[in-house]
Amino acid sequence: MSTTVNADLARARAQATFDPLQLTYFLYDGPEKTKRKRFLQNMAISECEQQKFRRTAHLTREEQYEEALRKSTYAFKRVAELGLSDQADLFYFRDAIFLGPEPFAIHHAAFRPTVIKLATDKQRALWLPLIDSYRVIGTYAQTELGHGTFLRGLETTATYDPKTQEFIINSPTVTSAKFWPGGLGKTANHCVVMAKLFTQGKDVGMQSFMVQIRDLETHQPLPGVSVGDIGPKFGYAAMDNGYLSFKNVRIPRENMLMRYAQVLEDGTFIQPKNDRLVYGSMTLIRAQIVGGTARALAKAVTIATRYSAVRRQSQINSGQGEVQVIDFQTQQHKVFPQIAMAYALNITGRRSIAAYNRVSKQIEKGSLEELPVLHALSSGLKAYSSWEMMYGIEQCRLACGGHGYIEASGLPKIYANEVPACTYEGENTVLCLQTARYLMKCYAALTSGEALPPMVSYLRTAQGGRSQLSGKLELEQLIAAYEHRAARMISEAGARLAEQQKKGMKPAEAWNNSSQLLVEAAMAFCQTFAVRAFVETVQEAKLQPSLKAVLVQLCQLFAVQGILKYSGQFTKGGFLSDQQVETCQNKLFDLLALLKPNAVALVDAFDFPDQVLDSDLGRYDGNVYEALMEYARNSRLNESEVHEGFFKYQKPFVDYLNGKSILQARL
Amino acid sequence: MSTTVNADLARARAQATFDPLQLTYFLYDGPEKTKRKRFLQNMAISECEQQKFRRTAHLTREEQYEEALRKSTYAFKRVAELGLSDQADLFYFRDAIFLGPEPFAIHHAAFRPTVIKLATDKQRALWLPLIDSYRVIGTYAQTELGHGTFLRGLETTATYDPKTQEFIINSPTVTSAKFWPGGLGKTANHCVVMAKLFTQGKDVGMQSFMVQIRDLETHQPLPGVSVGDIGPKFGYAAMDNGYLSFKNVRIPRENMLMRYAQVLEDGTFIQPKNDRLVYGSMTLIRAQIVGGTARALAKAVTIATRYSAVRRQSQINSGQGEVQVIDFQTQQHKVFPQIAMAYALNITGRRSIAAYNRVSKQIEKGSLEELPVLHALSSGLKAYSSWEMMYGIEQCRLACGGHGYIEASGLPKIYANEVPACTYEGENTVLCLQTARYLMKCYAALTSGEALPPMVSYLRTAQGGRSQLSGKLELEQLIAAYEHRAARMISEAGARLAEQQKKGMKPAEAWNNSSQLLVEAAMAFCQTFAVRAFVETVQEAKLQPSLKAVLVQLCQLFAVQGILKYSGQFTKGGFLSDQQVETCQNKLFDLLALLKPNAVALVDAFDFPDQVLDSDLGRYDGNVYEALMEYARNSRLNESEVHEGFFKYQKPFVDYLNGKSILQARL
Repeated sequence: MSTTVNADLARARAQATFDPLQLTYFLYDGPEKTKRKRFLQNMAISECEQQKFRRTAHLTREEQYEEALRKSTYAFKRVAELGLSDQADLFYFRDAIFLGPEPFAIHHAAFRPTVIKLATDKQRALWLPLIDSYRVIGTYAQTELGHGTFLRGLETTATYDPKTQEFIINSPTVTSAKFWPGGLGKTANHCVVMAKLFTQGKDVGMQSFMVQIRDLETHQPLPGVSVGDIGPKFGYAAMDNGYLSFKNVRIPRENMLMRYAQVLEDGTFIQPKNDRLVYGSMTLIRAQIVGGTARALAKAVTIATRYSAVRRQSQINSGQGEVQVIDFQTQQHKVFPQIAMAYALNITGRRSIAAYNRVSKQIEKGSLEELPVLHALSSGLKAYSSWEMMYGIEQCRLACGGHGYIEASGLPKIYANEVPACTYEGENTVLCLQTARYLMKCYAALTSGEALPPMVSYLRTAQGGRSQLSGKLELEQLIAAYEHRAARMISEAGARLAEQQKKGMKPAEAWNNSSQLLVEAAMAFCQTFAVRAFVETVQEAKLQPSLKAVLVQLCQLFAVQGILKYSGQFTKGGFLSDQQVETCQNKLFDLLALLKPNAVALVDAFDFPDQVLDSDLGRYDGNVYEALMEYARNSRLNESEVHEGFFKYQKPFVDYLNGKSILQARL
Repeated sequence: MSTTVNADLARARAQATFDPLQLTYFLYDGPEKTKRKRFLQNMAISECEQQKFRRTAHLTREEQYEEALRKSTYAFKRVAELGLSDQADLFYFRDAIFLGPEPFAIHHAAFRPTVIKLATDKQRALWLPLIDSYRVIGTYAQTELGHGTFLRGLETTATYDPKTQEFIINSPTVTSAKFWPGGLGKTANHCVVMAKLFTQGKDVGMQSFMVQIRDLETHQPLPGVSVGDIGPKFGYAAMDNGYLSFKNVRIPRENMLMRYAQVLEDGTFIQPKNDRLVYGSMTLIRAQIVGGTARALAKAVTIATRYSAVRRQSQINSGQGEVQVIDFQTQQHKVFPQIAMAYALNITGRRSIAAYNRVSKQIEKGSLEELPVLHALSSGLKAYSSWEMMYGIEQCRLACGGHGYIEASGLPKIYANEVPACTYEGENTVLCLQTARYLMKCYAALTSGEALPPMVSYLRTAQGGRSQLSGKLELEQLIAAYEHRAARMISEAGARLAEQQKKGMKPAEAWNNSSQLLVEAAMAFCQTFAVRAFVETVQEAKLQPSLKAVLVQLCQLFAVQGILKYSGQFTKGGFLSDQQVETCQNKLFDLLALLKPNAVALVDAFDFPDQVLDSDLGRYDGNVYEALMEYARNSRLNESEVHEGFFKYQKPFVDYLNGKSILQARL
């Protein structure tokens, strides 16, 4: 493998008008944290090399699961030995080892947090030491074969038996089998089960129970427990998403998570006082997902941008030789808006986590005032960011031509492993409607003249008028255009909702009959938040002027591509004129040309080590083709020059068709 | 497995206002051809059951390749025994056996046709018998590691040696290795190689050569030939896409395909007279791809629509129980436009094949007049249809919630196996620019007042004015809106092109600097063709009124969703008013509600047997959940209750963290 950097990529890098390291500091909160991140990543990477962890592309699914188990146990052994506990430290160290989903993920991401959230102090004292020492390895079993989103529809039952003071867990139907929980299939020996609680003959609703499913010594499933892996999926090959069904499995009363709801010895059910705090944790998880989508898209666009500089194809001026595909406007138009989107989602994710922290402090002070808007925002942003990521990763893959399709490019894996973000932690459309539900409250407040929280106050002010947006693409004017459009779409959805009810529809039916407009209004609201977040962050950040200038261009590109994509929504009512949209379009092409010399530096700044990017097309050194050939030679179909299938099927087939007179001569 | 049809699906089916069989006849050109199709599919399906061909989802890639080889050799043995030759017969029989890409595909799709196209009569007489008896199994080796689209960039060389009257084939660089040809890795023993021909010391350009790469008896690679599989890809697991490089491989002079260009014994190169006919075959292949995208999207939307009727989730009116998700407007909005798109692409594909046949007849009569517009159209439609298919399949997958992500749904496989259509046979953006190249000729003709071919004559007439479109969504008015928008976008792109040149840019640079607008204009042109094709086909078809009424609604839905998606392009200049767009939006929601009772019947009419659909979610009988559980139980990770990884990694890890004191008691 060549050790020098591909000349075209080196030249593209050298054209940058700013110092990418400064941008890396901006992304990772300063030089110290960047240094720490790199230190942990490099340590993990060099240990992975010592451990000879294998690249997954050539492995079977069973091998990928086993290799992931090997990686997970190694990683968490090291985490214990190194005493890592800071969240960022843990993330960068583990992420550099796993490079994807792993069997212990839900143990940390959902099982343990659920115990902390819903267990009593006594239960925590018993379980957390076992959880943290991995004697208890768990997952969170909510979704069932027949039910995902709609909690009340879950069919698993927990029936309290006061005689033995036990709950009897059952899966009464085929559709009641738990389905999808990560790590459930082969790895977990416990899980938190969401089940419908029956006590004293009454259905008292969904509760959470700690259920052991496998023996701690032999790891065999316990009596009455039927558990296994659900089989191959689009991605997540190394994850043993599982199914689980119960037949009269008895657990002690103490295994119901009783921090809020409780069942007394005699079976008396005690309602929780207040479950609004449950909001909080969902809000944080969704805010974190936004950051995850930014990271996934950043990987994809790093690959596409670097390869666009390496790849030479076709001519612009015939006779002048082939050009780097990054010189083509159409290529810039595919890739650069994804760079802008990755930065926008990164900033949006950090903003919503900051908002979460701010509101959490308020809650501790007893004020729940901002919780609804935060919940609405985090729901919508999770949907918005995962949809944009999904679209963007595929744009990047297609921008790499045929080679984007080979696993060695890294892009198919990124896509297949990341798109579940559109579905888990709240299906996107359902989340949009939660956001819309809040926006309709604001719409009502608007008409009744009540005050609105700061984040949505523009719904009142952004009405009528004409935009002042000019060819300078003034950032404030871009925000104003988005706010005006969002305000209008929210009122239109509200108006349709009211109109449907006037026609005599029940509120619920009117809601359903307006739901598509409500979803689109929610997305307009989220896009507006993202544009403002990007603008304000760039304006507030202390940055070298050379860097700030580029980020302003990127911010303008982000805002402009959205205006053009939804131009009809911006011109409706005439706030933006056709002429202003056409100006945006011409400026878009100017911005693409302006950003070209900085494109590679902008993705270098994401600071993905090659081993984390895991892409032969996205290599920092640009030595793409040697790497692809090496990947190809390692194909298992090449373990023998002649595949046994030739002798088993192909040759007999040809002999059959031709009698025995096989042609000897070379043609 | 339950044998009765799921009650919700049965009810949804029963609501249809038309006879789906009549629609199936419409799609498959009448009762006779439908009967024939079903006969061949059923024969293939029952033979597959006898042969116990395995479902691929649980197989490793090597097993999938071997199983595909088993299927291919079985299928073509049967084709020979049954004497099948009609193209449709071959397609339905083979397709029902393969259910995806297979190693012999390129032998039939590209290798043999290339020989017929480029070989002399003498060469045909020698090779075709060997090809048709599979003694010679071939592929078409054009793309290289470093080159795809841009033919002139290919680096493989063929140097003529008059002394021995041989060509010497070489791969002078890493990037010159042939890369991607299907069947090349392990299956083929010959290929047609595109190489740069040097004779008498001169580079005379790209030519095609028949090169044997493996021994006919032992199947070992021949001296100087390095060949193998390129490794795992996004999809195409069963296909051995290959790499190939040459070191001084000598082939006789007679192995150059000499129907057009020739090399004489002394090395004299003779130019072909006319290569425009090469156009023709590309045009046919692209027209066929349009039909393929329609078929792929039809499969995906059959799955999503049936499952939307089976799946009950959440409530509309609380307390009234869970509803079928097909009752949600947002679900209808995801799925129904994809039904419309699948029909639109089906009709568009058949129209462009009809156009190809018409123009071919003209060519035989010596008239090449319509060839350019046909080429422009087929290029653009290939791009348009594959992009819409790509988006549509993912919409359908997301519409199935979490279960859309499991391989058993069939959706991930459809997506991963079909998206290459965006890249092969001409990368989509490159094809759009070919279409645009032609449209710019029309634009010039327009300004200079020349006549335009019928297919584009609207560029002259559709200017200015105001649309008469009303809430009736008159089909002619919908076409007029698309034509007006396309005409405007084409002139705008032409105007930008001219303006850039006025600014002193070279034509090629002005072209590149206008290319994104040119791509968008080309897409608007293709969408207009699709809308007109759909409208005219529905108007002309002899159909029962009950069926025609539904197809008109579907056609309106198709046209309206495009107007809403690109509303700014339709309102720009004021041909459509904001009010008319809002009317379209309200009518869209009405159409969704109108189509709901017919949705299942509309996809049933695609007439996919369960074995061809290969989806546990899309089963005709709707018994989805039993099928998913059976799929899950068959996961290879379930072959043992406790995976060996537990003993190799998990237990030692826990022991290490906890000393030897493993907790005995059950919690």
